[in-house]
Amino acid sequence: MMETQFKKTVDFIRELYNTPEAFIPLHEPRFVGNEKKYLIDAIDSTFVSSVGEYVNRFEEMMTQITGAKYAVAVVNGTAALHISLKLAGVQQGDEVLTQALSFVATPNAISYEKAIPHFIDVNEHTLGMGADALQTRLDQVAEMRDGVCWNKETNRKIAACVPMHTFGFPVEIEKIVAMCDSYNIPVVEDAAESLGSYVGEQHTGTFGLLGTVSLNGNKVVTSGGGGVILTNDKEIAERAKHLTTTAKVPHKWDYVHNELGYNYRMPNLNAALACAQLEQLDRYIGNKKETAQRYQAFFEKISGVDFIQKPAGSTPNYWLHAVQLENRAQRDKLLEYTNGEGVMTRPVWELLNRLPMYIDCPSGDLSVSSLLADTLVNITSSVRN
Amino acid sequence: MMETQFKKTVDFIRELYNTPEAFIPLHEPRFVGNEKKYLIDAIDSTFVSSVGEYVNRFEEMMTQITGAKYAVAVVNGTAALHISLKLAGVQQGDEVLTQALSFVATPNAISYEKAIPHFIDVNEHTLGMGADALQTRLDQVAEMRDGVCWNKETNRKIAACVPMHTFGFPVEIEKIVAMCDSYNIPVVEDAAESLGSYVGEQHTGTFGLLGTVSLNGNKVVTSGGGGVILTNDKEIAERAKHLTTTAKVPHKWDYVHNELGYNYRMPNLNAALACAQLEQLDRYIGNKKETAQRYQAFFEKISGVDFIQKPAGSTPNYWLHAVQLENRAQRDKLLEYTNGEGVMTRPVWELLNRLPMYIDCPSGDLSVSSLLADTLVNITSSVRN
Repeated sequence: MMETQFKKTVDFIRELYNTPEAFIPLHEPRFVGNEKKYLIDAIDSTFVSSVGEYVNRFEEMMTQITGAKYAVAVVNGTAALHISLKLAGVQQGDEVLTQALSFVATPNAISYEKAIPHFIDVNEHTLGMGADALQTRLDQVAEMRDGVCWNKETNRKIAACVPMHTFGFPVEIEKIVAMCDSYNIPVVEDAAESLGSYVGEQHTGTFGLLGTVSLNGNKVVTSGGGGVILTNDKEIAERAKHLTTTAKVPHKWDYVHNELGYNYRMPNLNAALACAQLEQLDRYIGNKKETAQRYQAFFEKISGVDFIQKPAGSTPNYWLHAVQLENRAQRDKLLEYTNGEGVMTRPVWELLNRLPMYIDCPSGDLSVSSLLADTLVNITSSVRN
Repeated sequence: MMETQFKKTVDFIRELYNTPEAFIPLHEPRFVGNEKKYLIDAIDSTFVSSVGEYVNRFEEMMTQITGAKYAVAVVNGTAALHISLKLAGVQQGDEVLTQALSFVATPNAISYEKAIPHFIDVNEHTLGMGADALQTRLDQVAEMRDGVCWNKETNRKIAACVPMHTFGFPVEIEKIVAMCDSYNIPVVEDAAESLGSYVGEQHTGTFGLLGTVSLNGNKVVTSGGGGVILTNDKEIAERAKHLTTTAKVPHKWDYVHNELGYNYRMPNLNAALACAQLEQLDRYIGNKKETAQRYQAFFEKISGVDFIQKPAGSTPNYWLHAVQLENRAQRDKLLEYTNGEGVMTRPVWELLNRLPMYIDCPSGDLSVSSLLADTLVNITSSVRN
């Protein structure tokens, strides 16, 4: 990629976003629907906290959108993942399989219960956990003991598997779930980035025992802070609601709590914003899909840059657009140039196994993750006006 | 207390709150200031999530109100307490002294790091941790080893002390802090209920190493969900902000995180509401103080009921008003009658040492806590129009 191509890229993005001079953020939220109306209504109702009609409505909308039988609204995707792992049975000292290329919230949620992340390589097409990489690693370390999967090298139970749908591109979830089923490993799908992404006709986050969604400010739609636990299991859904409030036993006035609860419930104020945003989800995704098509056409003419396309068989939400450069030096040049010109771009996250708190965690071969970490760049992805 | 006195009480509350027939909740929020204006402004700014001007403004207002040098805004009081305990040095297997009469969030936050609550009795006047009870218990179990306080009975380190200012009434915080200092036990003040409460001229939550405040929907002022960490220690404040975001190392584009972080930051949307509410704090507390005076005058004429008055030397925020009955049977009768008449009242929380998850925790003598649990009732406490 040459200097002139960097300039062409910046010019193209500035034209695409109709922003000739001002700073262009990577992804900003759009509030063009009922956001203000619902917020004012929440204030008028006086219900702004952990109980309210918008929380109920939001959960109902989430079940309609995702097809999950149950949706439980919480403060953010990290909290959703923490509680989902608890409900999947993860305990202190267990190992949880996840991918090396993910946002730090994924291994953090695993660590809250003092379990240990175990990093698997990603697939070069999905950018998320690779089914082949998972099989290879299980072949290396898995040992079934009385129907429970153990890592025979570390002598720790493998208590869950958390694939993450990177940038909204679905992983090979059906293969991963089938594989985990054969080892009795529950799957918690980290769908933080993939609200509105489907594999075939089925929404991401609904293939595993539990799935988690984020509505953080940088996502396709936002509630300020927000997250959702998805499941088809009634008992798990009830326990999710119990644990994410304060585990209070229903009573007309007594305050009795019967287990350790987490104050993770989404406030009604944030749910009001979430409802207004969800009403626009389809339109936003359509808009982003069109942006992806324009990027694709543009980058076809730029040598040394590949625009990342959706994995076969999936319908992504096109949350974050990404390009792949030839090497890390090229990546850094693109980052320097675009950010220097006021068009925000970013590399993918530092690989999780390289962060100081996870450097001693077990992992398989991570060569695809390493390559992607060196060469991927996210480019402007907001919904266009 | 006789049947006619129950009726008189209900009539008095209905008159006080100018609500002749409708259901009267225990404590509902009041939104009569800039709440809608600031929420709309937050939407227009597009900053609704973990970064924004209202979060900064809210933290500044909190330092002005409390006199703490630093305030860090988080999603709720439970999260504030969790991180404060970590910053005070509490680790898995440690013991943390707290009071038996508190909301379950207090021992829950202690439990998140797998530390163990150790319950101390409360003082009958403050309703919070008793200085004498604390001294008695320390005399029984404390042993200094190389400058560190241990419980010689359980052989666990006593890593922190968490007094809680019940209903906004300050505990004997100066005595408790002095006592803990002499044992090298850091104090984390749970000021969840006491925003606007002072001991002498000093705000609660600023006596210990750290203090925590809640802005949940049931508090004097609310941000939907919200909490604050207070401290005068610059390094602790910086670490509080680092841990409550995602422990990201500042960089122009790289995503490197250097320790286990918690996604606990207060969203700007909630901070917008918090700013509008804080503007009204003084007025609300003045209103509630007047309500307390009216209750006091009324209950002086009712035999068998004592209206709980503020502890000497303190200026409470009068968050929840409370009366004390002669015994549990009387308490239950009052609860039955008032709730049956549509005037919501509630008993105090079930004692924490009686909850299934805390039943095996160490504790001192808890006779005052038991007595109060049997006899206290909270009565209508909302700001009056």
